Amino acid sequence: VIVETLAVGTELLLGQIVNSNAAEIGSRLADAGFDHYHQTVVGDNIARITEAITRATTRADALIITGGIGPTQDDITREAMSAAAEMPMEFSDDYADHLRRWWEDRGRVMPESNLRQAWYPVGAEMIPNPKGTAPGLRMRIGRCRVFAIPGVPAEMLPMVDGEIIPSLLAEHDDRGVVVSRVLRTWGESESRIDELLSDLFTGSVNPTVAFLASAAEIKVRLTARATDREAARTLIAPVEAEVRRRLGVRVFGADEGTVERILLEMLEGRGWSMGTAESATGGMIAAAVTGVPGASASFVGSVVAYDRAVKEGALGVPPGLIDAYGVVSEEVALAMCEGAALALGAHVVVATTGAAGPEPHGAPVGTMVIAVVTPEGAMAKTLRMPGDRERVRTYTVTSALHHMRLAVSGEWWS
Amino acid sequence: VIVETLAVGTELLLGQIVNSNAAEIGSRLADAGFDHYHQTVVGDNIARITEAITRATTRADALIITGGIGPTQDDITREAMSAAAEMPMEFSDDYADHLRRWWEDRGRVMPESNLRQAWYPVGAEMIPNPKGTAPGLRMRIGRCRVFAIPGVPAEMLPMVDGEIIPSLLAEHDDRGVVVSRVLRTWGESESRIDELLSDLFTGSVNPTVAFLASAAEIKVRLTARATDREAARTLIAPVEAEVRRRLGVRVFGADEGTVERILLEMLEGRGWSMGTAESATGGMIAAAVTGVPGASASFVGSVVAYDRAVKEGALGVPPGLIDAYGVVSEEVALAMCEGAALALGAHVVVATTGAAGPEPHGAPVGTMVIAVVTPEGAMAKTLRMPGDRERVRTYTVTSALHHMRLAVSGEWWS
Repeated sequence: VIVETLAVGTELLLGQIVNSNAAEIGSRLADAGFDHYHQTVVGDNIARITEAITRATTRADALIITGGIGPTQDDITREAMSAAAEMPMEFSDDYADHLRRWWEDRGRVMPESNLRQAWYPVGAEMIPNPKGTAPGLRMRIGRCRVFAIPGVPAEMLPMVDGEIIPSLLAEHDDRGVVVSRVLRTWGESESRIDELLSDLFTGSVNPTVAFLASAAEIKVRLTARATDREAARTLIAPVEAEVRRRLGVRVFGADEGTVERILLEMLEGRGWSMGTAESATGGMIAAAVTGVPGASASFVGSVVAYDRAVKEGALGVPPGLIDAYGVVSEEVALAMCEGAALALGAHVVVATTGAAGPEPHGAPVGTMVIAVVTPEGAMAKTLRMPGDRERVRTYTVTSALHHMRLAVSGEWWS
Repeated sequence: VIVETLAVGTELLLGQIVNSNAAEIGSRLADAGFDHYHQTVVGDNIARITEAITRATTRADALIITGGIGPTQDDITREAMSAAAEMPMEFSDDYADHLRRWWEDRGRVMPESNLRQAWYPVGAEMIPNPKGTAPGLRMRIGRCRVFAIPGVPAEMLPMVDGEIIPSLLAEHDDRGVVVSRVLRTWGESESRIDELLSDLFTGSVNPTVAFLASAAEIKVRLTARATDREAARTLIAPVEAEVRRRLGVRVFGADEGTVERILLEMLEGRGWSMGTAESATGGMIAAAVTGVPGASASFVGSVVAYDRAVKEGALGVPPGLIDAYGVVSEEVALAMCEGAALALGAHVVVATTGAAGPEPHGAPVGTMVIAVVTPEGAMAKTLRMPGDRERVRTYTVTSALHHMRLAVSGEWWS
C-alpha cells in the first residue's frame, strides 16, 4: 500500500515553519507498514495544489494532504480537490449548523467567513476534527483515497491516528498488523549504541530494528508484522530481551514511559513528594513534570530562584556560601535543595544552577550544576554542555530528570 | 527566478529525522528574492530520484538537491543526475587526490569506498565542501542549474550561503531584493483578522499580505520586492500603516518582538522586577520568560504552588479563602500574586490557577484564572478554553504573558 503526503502552505516554502508534520505522519505510516515514497510541499496556489494532487493520485493508493483547509481566503485545498476530482463544490447546511454550534458552545459568535469550511467537493465526506473547527475531508479520486486535514499538529495528529490510519488498515486487512516497541535509553551516545547493536540493525527483517534519535535520549524501535498483535509481540520479545541484555541499565523505559512518568511512578511507589529549585532551567523541570496528567499526586511545587536575592530569601541559601563558592557551584545547588525541601515541604528536590549563556554568571557558558536531595541522601554533579542557550537548558532538564530518577531509586549512590 | 528544492533520503520519509534543511534553504531563497514553488522528498531510489530531478528541471530555473552524495552504497544522487542529464559518469583523478589529502591531513587513511565520491556526470563541476569530504556538484540540465550538496546541515548551509545563492544572484543581478515585515497580533481569531484585512489579502501584489497562524497569536506578513532594501521598506510602510490602523491595539509587536521580549523591555523601562506564582501552568510562564537571553535584568523568580499546602505555606494564601472560593478562583489567584510579590520581592507578579484536566480541581476542565498585580493595580480574569491538557496550558501561558503586558502598560485598567 503506497501512501503519499502533500503539505500545503507558502509558509513552509518560505522556511517560516519547519515541516515537522511530514516526520510525524511518516513515522506513523512506517509503523503501520505502509510504503511512503514521495513527500511534497506546495504553496497556497490553486494550480500547483491541483497538479500535485493529480500527480499523487496517479501513483499512490492513498494521499494525505495537510494544510489549506482553514477558514481564510488562503485556504484553498478544498477547491483544489474539487478541481483534481473534476467535481463541483456543494454547501453543507448540516456542517454550517455544526460550525455555528461549535462557536456558540464557546460563547462566541462565528465570523461569517468560517462558512467557507461548509463547502466541499461533491463526493467528499467530512472527517470530524475533535480539536478545532476545520473539518477534514475524504474522497476517492480515481483509484486513490484522498484525505485532507488541517496543518496544525494538535488537530492533525488525532485525525491521522483516529481516522486515516485505521481506515487504511481496515481496507487492507489482509496485510496483518504491525506492532512497534520503543525502548528508551539514556546516558550513551548514538554511535556507542550503534556499536553495541550493530549486527541487530544490519540483519533485522521482522522485527526491524531502528534508531530514533532525539535530544538527550536515544530510542531503539522494534517493529514486527504478523497476523495478529499477539503473534507480532511474540516476534518482538526475544529481540527486545537481547537489546536489553546488551544495553543493561541504559534502557530506562519503553513506549510511552517517559522519564517524567517513570519518575512520578517511582515517587508514588515510595510515598515521597517532590519539588524543584531552579535557577538556570527557570521552571522548565517543573513544567515538564506537571505536563504529566496526575502529577499532583507527588509534585507539590517549585521555587524558581533566578535572582540571587530569591536564592537567599525564599530558599535561605547563606550569602557566605554564594560568596565563597560562586552561584554556579555544587555547594549552592545542594543548599538550594535543602531550602526548597523546607519551603515546599517536599521529600525530594532537584536543583539547577548554571550558565546557559550568553552571560557567564561567574562560570564558563555551558556549565550546569544539578543537585538532588532525597530522604536517603544528597548528591550533586557538574556538567559541561555544548550548544546555545536553548539547547543547554533542554539538555539540563532531561539530565536533571534522569538524575532524580537515579536518586529516587538509590542507584546514584549505590 | 524559480528555485526548486529536492531532499533525498529514506530516513526523511520514515520520519526518523525532520526536514529542517527545507526550512533553512527556503528562508534563504525568500531573503534572496527567489520564488520557491515546490519542495519534494524522495527516498534512496534511483528511479524516483531521477524522475524528481527531470520534473524539476522542466519547471524551475534552478534545483537544489540535498542528500545522497556521501560515500555509501545508499548515496546515489550522482548516478541519478547522470541519468537525468543523459550524460555518462567519469572518474576525477584530481578529486580522488583531493579526497586522499583530506583524510591524510587528519592523520587517517581514507576508506576505499570514499572513492565513489570522485565519480561525477560528464559536464558537472565540483563544489568544494569546507566542512566535510563529500563535494557538491553543479551542472546544467536543459535550461536548469542543478546543485547537489550533502544533507548534513553543518556541511550543507555553508555551501548554500557561500556558493549557490551568490552564483544564482550573480546570474540574475537585475532582480533586486526582498524584504519581509511580520506584524504580531493577539486577542482575535484568525477568521476575524481575515475579515478585517480581507481586501488587503486578496489584492496584494507588492507587498504581498499573508497570514501566519500559530498557537494563540496571529501574524500578518508583508513582503515587498524592490531594487534595494530601502525601496522595499518604502513599499511596505503604507500597507503596514493601514494594517495597524485597522487592527489597532491587536498588533502588539513586529518581527522578532515576541510577547516575552516586549514584556521584558516594558519592565526594564519602568524599572519593575517580575515573578510568577503558577499553579495550573506549573512553571511554564517562568520557563518562557527565562528563555529570553538577559531575562535576569527583570525576572527574579517564581513560586510554583501546585499543592494546596504550598499555596498556603510559601505563598501565604489564607486557608479560609480557598475554602470559601475554591482553589480555582480569582480571589485565590490574586492572593497568590500578593504572596509571591512578598516572597520573591517582585514588583509585578502573574498568577495562574485552573483545571487543565483531566482532574477538575473543583472547576470545569478548561477553566483558567489569570491574575496580575503591579505597583499600580491588580486584576483577575477567568477564561474557558477548549482542547486537551497541553493545549489549555500552552494557551494559558500566552494569555498570561499578554495580560502581564496589558497590566504593565496600564491598558488592562485604563
